Amino acid sequence: MSNVLNGDDLDLIFRCARTHNVWLDQPVEDALLQQVYDLAKMGPTSANMCPMRIVFVKSREAKEKLKPALDAGNVDKTMKAPVTAIIGMDIRFYDKLPKLFPHADAKSWFKDLPENALEYIALRNCSLQGAYFMLAARALGLDCGPMSGFDNAKVDEAFFAGTTIKSNFLCNLGHGYPSKLYPRSPRLGFEEACKVV
Amino acid sequence: MSNVLNGDDLDLIFRCARTHNVWLDQPVEDALLQQVYDLAKMGPTSANMCPMRIVFVKSREAKEKLKPALDAGNVDKTMKAPVTAIIGMDIRFYDKLPKLFPHADAKSWFKDLPENALEYIALRNCSLQGAYFMLAARALGLDCGPMSGFDNAKVDEAFFAGTTIKSNFLCNLGHGYPSKLYPRSPRLGFEEACKVV
Repeated sequence: MSNVLNGDDLDLIFRCARTHNVWLDQPVEDALLQQVYDLAKMGPTSANMCPMRIVFVKSREAKEKLKPALDAGNVDKTMKAPVTAIIGMDIRFYDKLPKLFPHADAKSWFKDLPENALEYIALRNCSLQGAYFMLAARALGLDCGPMSGFDNAKVDEAFFAGTTIKSNFLCNLGHGYPSKLYPRSPRLGFEEACKVV
Repeated sequence: MSNVLNGDDLDLIFRCARTHNVWLDQPVEDALLQQVYDLAKMGPTSANMCPMRIVFVKSREAKEKLKPALDAGNVDKTMKAPVTAIIGMDIRFYDKLPKLFPHADAKSWFKDLPENALEYIALRNCSLQGAYFMLAARALGLDCGPMSGFDNAKVDEAFFAGTTIKSNFLCNLGHGYPSKLYPRSPRLGFEEACKVV
């Protein structure tokens, strides 16, 4: 096993990876989505709770169901993306803990917490998993187009009715046109965002 | 630039990477922490808001300040880790948007939202960045030991008093003993966590 990633690989998943808005007409196979998930699922979460649940919206019918929930600026690119992943979180993640954390009664640590505390914990850990998912997608050659600009309640009604899952964010997946990218926006320098004490 | 990561590299950052609890007595230079941040900062956030703020706790004095906030089971490993990163989030992230999102008045989209809505948005995006940070650390040869088991209010009082930053999670950093790892816990299979529609 290598000890560090080389510069090309760091470019692929971090430095040259960009949020794409224009997509090549090139399908994404379900088998590749599964490979991405199988990498992403290995990343750490609190008590291994793994609250992320994903709906991969691929069919024309499912895209039409998603469409009314999208902010105007996100409609066109999302309708044209080969896949749109709805990154959701199960607020009752603790039901899976007897399987996921078998060496202690971790379910008892969470099951009586109020709903807003559960949602806060689920949001933290689902967002971690959503980031693992995007970096795994890039590591396997896909481009990502994550979005928060949509109506969460409408997505939940259309895709998660009758469940304890809530939408977190959306992520278009496919192969983007590099020539259609906007210029890279600035980031905060180390001194602006970090300190060592 | 390569198009996909090879199997060894996927092992390094996903498949064989583990949460470490026992640390080699081997320091982590500040320059390496900066390299990790400089990769992590490139990952996407909503409107490029980049709410993550990190305090790297390295000195004995700063570790002693952190100690009373830790859950009992996290004290020993954290005191022995070469570095403990406090992954925090700035609830007033919108103050940086004129720099980070210069092509629109993104600050106006957020600045009048109630505090709980701002915290929800900051938590989502800081957690994404925290995950980028951990995968970047692994990509540069560090091991991670993330933790939620601590008193957030005590950490905020000790490290973020007088600011609008709140702690999200902690992450020990260094070089772990592979022989001291627990067995890998199960994960949810694709069929349990995902569907394609």
